[in-house]
Amino acid sequence: MKKYCFGVDLGGTTVKIGLFDAEGNMLEKWEIPTRKENSGMLILGDIANAVQGKCRQREISAEQVQGIGLGVPGPVVSENTVNMCVNLGWHKFEVGDTLRALTGIPVKVVNDADAAALGERVQGCGKGCDNLIMFTLGTGVGGGVIVGGKVIEGAHGAGGELGHMVIAEPEEVSGHCNCGQTGCLEQLASATGITAITKKALEEAGEDSILRSKPSFSARDIFDAARQGDPLALRTTDKMMRYLGRAAAFVACVTDPDIIVLGGGVSRAGEYLRAGTEKYFHMYAFPTMKETPVVLASLGNDAGMIGAVSLVCGR
Amino acid sequence: MKKYCFGVDLGGTTVKIGLFDAEGNMLEKWEIPTRKENSGMLILGDIANAVQGKCRQREISAEQVQGIGLGVPGPVVSENTVNMCVNLGWHKFEVGDTLRALTGIPVKVVNDADAAALGERVQGCGKGCDNLIMFTLGTGVGGGVIVGGKVIEGAHGAGGELGHMVIAEPEEVSGHCNCGQTGCLEQLASATGITAITKKALEEAGEDSILRSKPSFSARDIFDAARQGDPLALRTTDKMMRYLGRAAAFVACVTDPDIIVLGGGVSRAGEYLRAGTEKYFHMYAFPTMKETPVVLASLGNDAGMIGAVSLVCGR
Repeated sequence: MKKYCFGVDLGGTTVKIGLFDAEGNMLEKWEIPTRKENSGMLILGDIANAVQGKCRQREISAEQVQGIGLGVPGPVVSENTVNMCVNLGWHKFEVGDTLRALTGIPVKVVNDADAAALGERVQGCGKGCDNLIMFTLGTGVGGGVIVGGKVIEGAHGAGGELGHMVIAEPEEVSGHCNCGQTGCLEQLASATGITAITKKALEEAGEDSILRSKPSFSARDIFDAARQGDPLALRTTDKMMRYLGRAAAFVACVTDPDIIVLGGGVSRAGEYLRAGTEKYFHMYAFPTMKETPVVLASLGNDAGMIGAVSLVCGR
Repeated sequence: MKKYCFGVDLGGTTVKIGLFDAEGNMLEKWEIPTRKENSGMLILGDIANAVQGKCRQREISAEQVQGIGLGVPGPVVSENTVNMCVNLGWHKFEVGDTLRALTGIPVKVVNDADAAALGERVQGCGKGCDNLIMFTLGTGVGGGVIVGGKVIEGAHGAGGELGHMVIAEPEEVSGHCNCGQTGCLEQLASATGITAITKKALEEAGEDSILRSKPSFSARDIFDAARQGDPLALRTTDKMMRYLGRAAAFVACVTDPDIIVLGGGVSRAGEYLRAGTEKYFHMYAFPTMKETPVVLASLGNDAGMIGAVSLVCGR
């Protein structure tokens, strides 16, 4: 009897769903919208419908499905309970048990950034690494920390909250972080963060910059300007990479990883970002870790699905 | 047939050895000197002799001994291999295999700070906590990080090297750290560190201080002065606790522990140190972790033996 698994990456806008074989090879993927109305009460029903629809279409029985791995944008405890997902309108409840009741299929739940880290470990740039740190540089900064092949969930599901190390002094950043603190890594190294510190630098410095002529600019524009030699963009991206490299060195003192992975939208800045972050990581790292490589994530948007499914598939 | 275990804490001056029953209860403990001559080649033979002597004395056969847990002052990989123990004169070798060959008893090796953290988890202030961070504040600053009941060894045995987070700017500390970096937590929060930053403050500030009258002073003198209201000692201990609390908040973003433990000689400063560190930890911690307690270690010098033996005994 052939076995299948589903890997689901639940985001604030879309739900990415993948059908996998029992070895974790992707057979098919598709997306459905995330319906956030009514405190997100429709979301799990929509996922259950999508899974059951696919099973009917492919003539797969529920018994043939080994499990569903579900990545969610919030802290997760015991591969089941979500404490709070602000983006979805969810408060604390047993997400895994609920989706299992709706589908009759075993479910394991994982934080989305942790899922991405797991994905890079099983099929991406960190293949074969038992110990891995991943920074997901998107609208915010997420983190996934893997030790001995397993994600660190933590006592409150907040293991790997790498974006909220209060690494900078208040004057280095712009305003407060969403978490309420001031000086979080997220305020420097997210797309929003690098944009905010660059705007602040433009306001404070009188100097000329390619960016000054634009009515608005994105993280991508800032990195493009830096690669073109724009001094102000060089300065703010350097500052961002210095804090990111230093944060990576702090995390490495805790887990001593095989590899440090940079993912998320901002990581499309590519080699410039990787090399700069690695330079500062090596500067601040404990001597025995100075050879630990900083690499770019390789799975893109599929990492979450692939990592989530790894919790329920055979490998 | 009754079963026994040995827990050994190998330090730079003495080797602490404990005989335990199979449930990890200590039956007897004693010490032998650490003979560091000849690149530390005599040490394992001395430990083997001590273990075998105790077995003869108590009429315990080798078959009745379940294992030896050995804590060593250096990075350990795979519960066997030591990369380097500067204090003992050891270079890289298979410590566990060697002691097993000498005694005929299974051996598991662990870093000493990790052993202390394990000890506090199984029988001390962290009893029952699956996730624990411990800072060992002694001559240096060691760390032990436990996740899911297990120590994080890391890729190079350097997991939990919490003393070497480069947390301060160079001007905040005195000189360089032993590891070669400048600004390590160890340069602020070890006995040596708090003494050095206090001496530096005395030199830089003209203000009066109880400490100025002393020809030399220790970490203990500094904390005593602070408790007596000495403004300069209050300032330097506050600075030390601020960096320690902030470092704890960084580590908590990685592992989200149940509890944060302060041990080592400096932790004899007691409630003053605990409360000050906890205040700053809560100031810098990610919101969901603000209730995580900072506590003082409770096992004193026995923590290492108790933690080491926990790797080989029944529990």
